[in-house]
Amino acid sequence: MTAVTIIGAGNLGGAVAALAAKAGAQVQVLARDPEKAHTIAAPLGADAGTLGDHLTGDIVVLALPYHAVSAVLDTYAGALAGKTLVDVTNPVDFATFDALVVPADSSAARIIQDAVPQATVVKAFNTNFGATLATGTAGPLATTVLIAGDDQAAKQAVAGLVTAGGLRAIDAGSLKRARELEALGFLQLTLAAGGKTPWTGGFALVG
Amino acid sequence: MTAVTIIGAGNLGGAVAALAAKAGAQVQVLARDPEKAHTIAAPLGADAGTLGDHLTGDIVVLALPYHAVSAVLDTYAGALAGKTLVDVTNPVDFATFDALVVPADSSAARIIQDAVPQATVVKAFNTNFGATLATGTAGPLATTVLIAGDDQAAKQAVAGLVTAGGLRAIDAGSLKRARELEALGFLQLTLAAGGKTPWTGGFALVG
Repeated sequence: MTAVTIIGAGNLGGAVAALAAKAGAQVQVLARDPEKAHTIAAPLGADAGTLGDHLTGDIVVLALPYHAVSAVLDTYAGALAGKTLVDVTNPVDFATFDALVVPADSSAARIIQDAVPQATVVKAFNTNFGATLATGTAGPLATTVLIAGDDQAAKQAVAGLVTAGGLRAIDAGSLKRARELEALGFLQLTLAAGGKTPWTGGFALVG
Repeated sequence: MTAVTIIGAGNLGGAVAALAAKAGAQVQVLARDPEKAHTIAAPLGADAGTLGDHLTGDIVVLALPYHAVSAVLDTYAGALAGKTLVDVTNPVDFATFDALVVPADSSAARIIQDAVPQATVVKAFNTNFGATLATGTAGPLATTVLIAGDDQAAKQAVAGLVTAGGLRAIDAGSLKRARELEALGFLQLTLAAGGKTPWTGGFALVG
């Protein structure tokens, strides 16, 4: 059985935890506030805990705002070796909402991979609004989770989870494609914030 | 009546010419090979001509591969002042299909605008496969044309054309957003080339 740890108890963390539980994975939810982790975990029959607790998952989902990732990686320094780290972030400069905070020729996923070379980073879920993960639909289309990474086995593990949870998974290429996934995620956020697409929609990939 | 010149007689040029004709615009199609221009223009009741002919459009659509744009701008140096230049390109490095050929912190649209400061550049159509412009649908959804630019009047002129032609137009923000539109266009091309979305689909924006 796949074991998945979700770090973060926000909208997306909750949606990915529910997806993993639906997929039959053993799920652990960790958050700075253990009460929030419990609120998500309890209805799913998942474990809840506090940031710093032992990681039970082989797949660790960083369901955090980008600015919060670095401290969490420090917290778990040494405990991430051999894990598949799933980066869901859109590293938007929320002060201006006009750029990303990562260098133009890099990506949040690349930066996380460089910070934790002993783990395997996979970019996924950053182009999905939480609601579309929960319902399985983006407008009239099936929700598609785009997955990028350099390690086929790690990508397949994440794709297997997505598929077993009832959603469509697409291999979007190497970790280099995280740059385009983050551009897409950012653009989609600006369009939804501007009322040009609903938070239950965004960009849906025609199958 | 809006007057539109399409430079280029490929798949996208033909689709934009048909859209403009449907919108009731006066349409001119120019191509290096005047026979190709004629093939597109004749059924639309549009004018056809050769690259270098006088531009009759106030809106000039550069429906060319990115590598061919520079020579066309040279050909029309001086004749582009005051025009709205529509950049439809995805400046993909087709040798590797793994990157764009423009600097990571720039875009084809930005480079074209800098090359022709006396014209107003609008990014549009680069996230639409030609077939979706022709049919009005991307899978089950209405085709949406994303438009980015710094000049509201120019964007509205292009949006008006799109809407009058029966498609949905969305203002995607300033010309800076061309970077994200080109990332989206590139990603979409890689997915279609990999058989992961049909050339009649791609990313459809939920309305």
